[in-house]
Amino acid sequence: MKSDIDALMKARNVDAILVLGDAEHNPSMYYFVGGGHVSGAMLLKKQGETPVLFYYDMEREEAAKSGLPTRSFSEFAWQDLIRQSNGDMVQAAALRLQKILEEYGQTSGRIAVYGKVEFSQVFAVMSKAMELMPEIQFIGESGMDSILLHAMETKEDVEVARIRQMGAVTTTVVGMVKDYLTACEVREDEVLVKEDGHPLTIGDVKARIALWLAERGAVDVEGLIFAIGRDAGIPHSAGDPDDLITLGKTIVFDIYPAEKGGGYFYDFTRTWSLGYAAPEAQAYYDQVREIYNKLVENLDLNASFVDYQRMTCEYFEAKGHKTQLNTDSPLDGYVHSLGHGVGLNIHERPWASLTSGKDNILKPGVVITLEPGLYYPDQGMGFRIEDTYWVRPDGKMEVLAEFPYDFVLPMKKWQKE
Amino acid sequence: MKSDIDALMKARNVDAILVLGDAEHNPSMYYFVGGGHVSGAMLLKKQGETPVLFYYDMEREEAAKSGLPTRSFSEFAWQDLIRQSNGDMVQAAALRLQKILEEYGQTSGRIAVYGKVEFSQVFAVMSKAMELMPEIQFIGESGMDSILLHAMETKEDVEVARIRQMGAVTTTVVGMVKDYLTACEVREDEVLVKEDGHPLTIGDVKARIALWLAERGAVDVEGLIFAIGRDAGIPHSAGDPDDLITLGKTIVFDIYPAEKGGGYFYDFTRTWSLGYAAPEAQAYYDQVREIYNKLVENLDLNASFVDYQRMTCEYFEAKGHKTQLNTDSPLDGYVHSLGHGVGLNIHERPWASLTSGKDNILKPGVVITLEPGLYYPDQGMGFRIEDTYWVRPDGKMEVLAEFPYDFVLPMKKWQKE
Repeated sequence: MKSDIDALMKARNVDAILVLGDAEHNPSMYYFVGGGHVSGAMLLKKQGETPVLFYYDMEREEAAKSGLPTRSFSEFAWQDLIRQSNGDMVQAAALRLQKILEEYGQTSGRIAVYGKVEFSQVFAVMSKAMELMPEIQFIGESGMDSILLHAMETKEDVEVARIRQMGAVTTTVVGMVKDYLTACEVREDEVLVKEDGHPLTIGDVKARIALWLAERGAVDVEGLIFAIGRDAGIPHSAGDPDDLITLGKTIVFDIYPAEKGGGYFYDFTRTWSLGYAAPEAQAYYDQVREIYNKLVENLDLNASFVDYQRMTCEYFEAKGHKTQLNTDSPLDGYVHSLGHGVGLNIHERPWASLTSGKDNILKPGVVITLEPGLYYPDQGMGFRIEDTYWVRPDGKMEVLAEFPYDFVLPMKKWQKE
Repeated sequence: MKSDIDALMKARNVDAILVLGDAEHNPSMYYFVGGGHVSGAMLLKKQGETPVLFYYDMEREEAAKSGLPTRSFSEFAWQDLIRQSNGDMVQAAALRLQKILEEYGQTSGRIAVYGKVEFSQVFAVMSKAMELMPEIQFIGESGMDSILLHAMETKEDVEVARIRQMGAVTTTVVGMVKDYLTACEVREDEVLVKEDGHPLTIGDVKARIALWLAERGAVDVEGLIFAIGRDAGIPHSAGDPDDLITLGKTIVFDIYPAEKGGGYFYDFTRTWSLGYAAPEAQAYYDQVREIYNKLVENLDLNASFVDYQRMTCEYFEAKGHKTQLNTDSPLDGYVHSLGHGVGLNIHERPWASLTSGKDNILKPGVVITLEPGLYYPDQGMGFRIEDTYWVRPDGKMEVLAEFPYDFVLPMKKWQKE
C-alpha cells in the first residue's frame, strides 16, 4: 500500500523517488496522481514527505485534481532554461531538474526514477543530470521487484472495489458474448453466421467486445485474446481477425480490460467449445478444471505463490504433459506460469514463476490471477481458465467476479444430428 | 521515412538502434513491427542492415506477423540466464543483451536506445549492461530531435492513407456529436436535456464519443477534450464530466483518436457555441478564424514551421493579446504553439515553438496540425480551431479531413426569444 513506501525507501536506502511522464497509462504516476490529462509531468517524493506534482501550465486544472501539492514548471524559469540551452531540450530538462532538486534540498543521495516514458529522451536527460549533479545517484530498479511494485502489491479497499467493478464489467461482457455466439445461426459446414448472412469472424466478435466495454467505461487497452483452434494453442496469439467461428473447436477468450484513462485492470479467461467438443478436448479441459479447483481449494493465507506453480506443474506432469519444471521453454503442454498480481499494471507483484523469489506471498490485500492452461497447437487446441482473486484482510480468498465454467456451450438454433 | 534511418544513423555516428517494449502503444516499436500482441520485445537494427525482432515464445505467432526476421529469447538461453543470476531479472536481462549483441557482432560502438517502457527497469538493465560491455556506449536522444523522430517526420503514402482514414472517422464522429447536441431539448435555464429528461453532462457526451469511435475501429487512447465555459479557457482542461451543457457558452472540442492497438493518430478541434454566442465571444472567434485562414493561405512548401508561430503571435499581439512572443508563460491570450507533427505519436516532428530549430520545415511528406487559439478563463471562454494538413509530394498543402467552421450551432428545438 502507499503507506508502505517510506519504509520500503528506507530499507533500500533510497532518499527520493522521481516519477516521470503522463498521468494516464503510466501506472507509477497514476498511483500517485489518480489519472487525468496531465502530460509530461514529474513527481518528487522525498522519504517521509508528501509527493509534489510538477506540471505544464496548460494542465494546471488537471494537475490540481490530483489533490497533491502542485508546482508549475514555469516557476522554475522553464522558458529561460530553454533559451539558455539554445533550444537543447535535454540540457534544459536536466537544468530544470537540478533547480527543482536544489529547491527541495535533494542535492545528494540516491534517487529512484520511475515512469512509463520514451526511454531515449529520459535516458539522455538522466545522463546529463548525472554530469550536472555528481553527488546524486540516479537508479533504476528491477521491474519485478521495485519499491513501487512492492507498495502496489497490497491493495487498499478502495482499489479492490475498483478492480471488482472492472470484474463486474468483464463478466457482463463475457456473458453478452456467450449469449450472442450461442444464438447465432449455423451453416452446413458448422460455421456461425451473422444476422446479415455472412460468416461470423473473430474480428466481428472483437469489435462487439470493444463496444460493449466502451459502453461500460472500460477499454481493452492492452488488447484481447479471442483465439480459436490452433491459435488457441498459442497462449498469446490474439486470434486472426479473419478466422471464422466454427463449432467444436476450442476458443480461448482472455479479456483484461482497464478503467478508461489507464486505471485498474481485471483479468479473466474462459475456454469454450461451441455446440460440442472433441473427446480429447473435453479430457484436456477436465484436467485444467481439476487443477484449477485443486488450487482454489488449497490457497492458503501467507503461502508462497510459487508453490502453487510447482503444484500445477507436478499435476500436469503426472498427466504426461511438458511443463517448465521438466522442460526448458516448452512450446506445448503447460507452458507459462500460474498467474500474477493485477492492479494498475495488468502484470505486477506477486509473481508465480518457478524462478520468482519466496517473497511472493499470498498476504492480505494481494490481488492475483490463477490461470492454469494446456496448449497443443499441432492438435489445433488450447485451454485456459483464469479468475482474479483477492486475499481478504480476514485471510479468506475471494474471487472478484463469478462466472460459470461450462466448456461446451449448447447452440440455441443447432443440434448435433 | 524509414528509408532515411541509415543515413540519419551514419550522420550521428550511431552504429545500432535498440528498441524495447511492447509492439502496441509504443511508437518506436510500432514503426518497425506494425503493432500486434508482442510484449516486452526487443528490436536490433544495425546500420545498413535489416532489423531483427526478438520475442518471448508465447508471442511467436504475433511476432511473425511483423514480417521481420525474428528470434526467440529462448534461443539465447533465457531460462539458464535467470537461474545463473539467481532470479535477478536485471542481471539476466543484461546478460541476454550481451549474448545477443555478441552474436550479431555489435561488441563496440554507439547504440541508441528507444521504446516506451517503464524507465526504472530498463535504466537498471542499461546500467548493468554498461558495466558488462564497457566498449559499447548506450545513448539516449532528445525527444524533440531523435533519429527515429526525424525518420517519422516524413510519411510514406501508406501512412498518410491511415492518418486520412482516422480523419474520416474523426469528422464523422464530430458530425454525430453536432447532430446530437443540436437536436436536444433545452430547459428554461438553457441547459440541454437528454432523452430521459435529465440534463446532458460532458460525461454523457464523452461516453457517446468513445462508443462512436469504438464502432469505427478508433480509440481516444490519449483522452479527449470537451470543455465548456471557463474550462474551455484552459487549453488542456479535459472538461469536468459533471458539467452541464448550456447554450451560449464556448465549447472547445479537441479530439485526437488513434487506430485501435496504438497506430496512427488524427488531431482536430472545433469551437462551438450552442444556440447563440455572446458578442465578445464571436469577436474572439472571428480573430482565431481570421488568423487560421491567413495561415492556410500562406503555407509554403519548405518554409519553416516556426515562422508561422511567429506570424500567429504577431497577429494576436496586434489585436492586444498576450502571446509567447511578448510574455513568458502567458496564462491567457494565445498561450501555446501553433501545432506539431502527427503520426504514431500525437505530438511529433516538426515542431512550431518559438524555441524550436529552423530545421522544422514544411517539407514534402510532413503531416502537421495548425491550431491557433485564444483563452480567457476569467471571462469563461476559450477558442481553438485545428485541422491536420499533409504537405503533398507535389508541394500542395492538403487538409486530411474537411469539416465546417461554424461557431454558433443553431438548436433545432429552441429559438432565442
